[in-house]
Amino acid sequence: MPHTPWTFAARTNDVRRSFIREILKVTADPSIISFAGGLPHPGLFPTQALARAAEAVVGRSGAASLQYSTTEGDPNLRAFIAARYRKRFGLDVDPDWIIVTTGSQQALDLLAKAFLDPGDRVLVERPGYIGAIQLFSLFQAAFDSVPLDDDGPDPQALGRALSGSGPRLFYAVPNFQNPSGVTWSRSRRELAAGLLAGSPAILVEDDPYGELRFLGEHQTPLYALRPERTFLLGSFSKIVSPGLRVGWLVADPEARQKLVTLKQASDLHTSTLAQGILVRYLAENDLDAHVERIRTAYRRQRDLMVARIEELFPPGVRCTRPEGGMFLWITLPESVSAFDVFDAAIKEKVAFVPGGPFFVDGTGANTMRLNFSNSDEERIDVGMRRLAACLDRVLARQASGRAACTSS
Amino acid sequence: MPHTPWTFAARTNDVRRSFIREILKVTADPSIISFAGGLPHPGLFPTQALARAAEAVVGRSGAASLQYSTTEGDPNLRAFIAARYRKRFGLDVDPDWIIVTTGSQQALDLLAKAFLDPGDRVLVERPGYIGAIQLFSLFQAAFDSVPLDDDGPDPQALGRALSGSGPRLFYAVPNFQNPSGVTWSRSRRELAAGLLAGSPAILVEDDPYGELRFLGEHQTPLYALRPERTFLLGSFSKIVSPGLRVGWLVADPEARQKLVTLKQASDLHTSTLAQGILVRYLAENDLDAHVERIRTAYRRQRDLMVARIEELFPPGVRCTRPEGGMFLWITLPESVSAFDVFDAAIKEKVAFVPGGPFFVDGTGANTMRLNFSNSDEERIDVGMRRLAACLDRVLARQASGRAACTSS
Repeated sequence: MPHTPWTFAARTNDVRRSFIREILKVTADPSIISFAGGLPHPGLFPTQALARAAEAVVGRSGAASLQYSTTEGDPNLRAFIAARYRKRFGLDVDPDWIIVTTGSQQALDLLAKAFLDPGDRVLVERPGYIGAIQLFSLFQAAFDSVPLDDDGPDPQALGRALSGSGPRLFYAVPNFQNPSGVTWSRSRRELAAGLLAGSPAILVEDDPYGELRFLGEHQTPLYALRPERTFLLGSFSKIVSPGLRVGWLVADPEARQKLVTLKQASDLHTSTLAQGILVRYLAENDLDAHVERIRTAYRRQRDLMVARIEELFPPGVRCTRPEGGMFLWITLPESVSAFDVFDAAIKEKVAFVPGGPFFVDGTGANTMRLNFSNSDEERIDVGMRRLAACLDRVLARQASGRAACTSS
Repeated sequence: MPHTPWTFAARTNDVRRSFIREILKVTADPSIISFAGGLPHPGLFPTQALARAAEAVVGRSGAASLQYSTTEGDPNLRAFIAARYRKRFGLDVDPDWIIVTTGSQQALDLLAKAFLDPGDRVLVERPGYIGAIQLFSLFQAAFDSVPLDDDGPDPQALGRALSGSGPRLFYAVPNFQNPSGVTWSRSRRELAAGLLAGSPAILVEDDPYGELRFLGEHQTPLYALRPERTFLLGSFSKIVSPGLRVGWLVADPEARQKLVTLKQASDLHTSTLAQGILVRYLAENDLDAHVERIRTAYRRQRDLMVARIEELFPPGVRCTRPEGGMFLWITLPESVSAFDVFDAAIKEKVAFVPGGPFFVDGTGANTMRLNFSNSDEERIDVGMRRLAACLDRVLARQASGRAACTSS
């Protein structure tokens, strides 16, 4: 269909196709062992229980699960979410403060629609979740970022970033962050809550991984420390199934009204059927026991990945040892580009995500994200050996000034 | 949670909660016979077939139906949609031109994100679909409108609206439109395609109701007459189930790339499970036979509603007799306000939607939308008798200058 070229709206100028999606295409080759994606392990989906729930909901409750439904979301699902906050944290969330969203990615879209004018300052972590950066780019945010250390955002940098008029919105993933695996310590949470107290800045606390804690105590959500002007996001993607596309957003009543109107304009409501299946599944199964199975498996996978790194990776390579979640974070010597390692690794039939695209300030070229949730232990073992061999060669080349790295 | 008042982004200033949603709250009272909603008849959902499909997809295909999936949508579903265009219209649509969306409402959100800068002119029908008006308001469109007659948009007004630089985007529902029930004739389609030829204006052809034709031949989509710069939208909501939230968008390859990126930022992808259930259902059932059952039922419901209007409504009231879809459109004498009729009707325990909110130019106060798809014949009979009695009284009051209308 030849025609004059398209012109797109100004907001799309800085929005690029996700780099990760491009990488995932490369890794579709089944001979490649991929630590690149951010997928839960499919063997841990409660497949049979969801099949029974699906059959029961459609076959018995019938038409109601197939009809249009309220924009706010299934009341039983919202009650379950509220009760779980009470149980896990003693946190008082009214089911009426919850909006069910089409995955928590949609919550970001709704919050940006509600609050971001072009040029508004958005503070993100460095590194930060790339899906949020992509979405806020589309709303023409001016990014600022705060670096992470092992305990969360750097205190001094956070103080500077939140001083003065502060950002319009601060987006953070305080538990087992994607990509770094970092969890904010209690004292960093209190520091941030203190800095935000009395500030008009909106805090978006995204918590898709919080339930996947392998050891230690659950950390109190920032929402509990500074509820006003904080939106707490959650998701069933990592604890039940991402294919359902069911997440949620905890909002205060006034903002919620606006967000519901925006959701209605965006997709009317989240799939009635997906919500109905989830409600039935949650009523008839023990979510705690299921999450415990996921935790146990992911912990073993993490342990194996960390062990192989400690055993096999060359000196000068650092890695996080996250207390939960799905990702490890590798920092290479400063002079080494993770893109060079990536090119070499693909030849070795192993993949990961170079960390640079997670940094809004253009740094991070020497970092890498490794996913440990999606791979069996055997593939982790083989893949990490391949990656170690490749790193050895790239670092040796670097040291000797040699020109190329090949596996053969 | 007391705090300083929220300030929202400028784009939300003109976006109001849907008037229809407010009305639907009033009509939640089960003693009210409601012709207000826009819901399919739940008795016509293929409930048992979908229950079997759900159980089979999750229980047998298992994990793949529960995992993250591609933003573009299930390839089998896109192939089905393309094949159906070929079968119905001889229309050549490559499955790769199709993006599966979270209901066709999301297609509007993606198109607005891709193409609308604040202040861009958007042309809509008068009356027009309120969900699109709400969404384009959020993208700060400057609305223009073209009045509809029984054959589609008024030719002279359409010529004027598309002349000069024309609108950035023209949104139309050419088959059994919501709210009017109007279908564009072949000659109006050709006129519009001619006026749009060579114009840079984007045409968004929304076709959720086209399959629900009671008599006569399917009309060729505008997309077939002017494919370049036209986006054709469809949905399974009215022919299978709206609770699945599965619609689609046909786009040209260059624009599609941008739209996929925008969808990825908006909700990653549409529910893998809902798509999987639909693919299985469509493979194992005869959609044509199912749609024929819907057509037969809705036709009888329309016939009964039209018969009661012709029998019982006072002189001076006009109504459309749509060839398909879900809605009838009533025009009252110019001096009568449909809001007055609405207030009186609620007291009589019958409801509809006053037409004014469907007009972007503030006219239409004397119009009403009646839905015939969601009600059984008995309720149509009783409800129309109540509505006729109420109209009699409001029109008599109008004529005599009397002050109030009550049912008792």
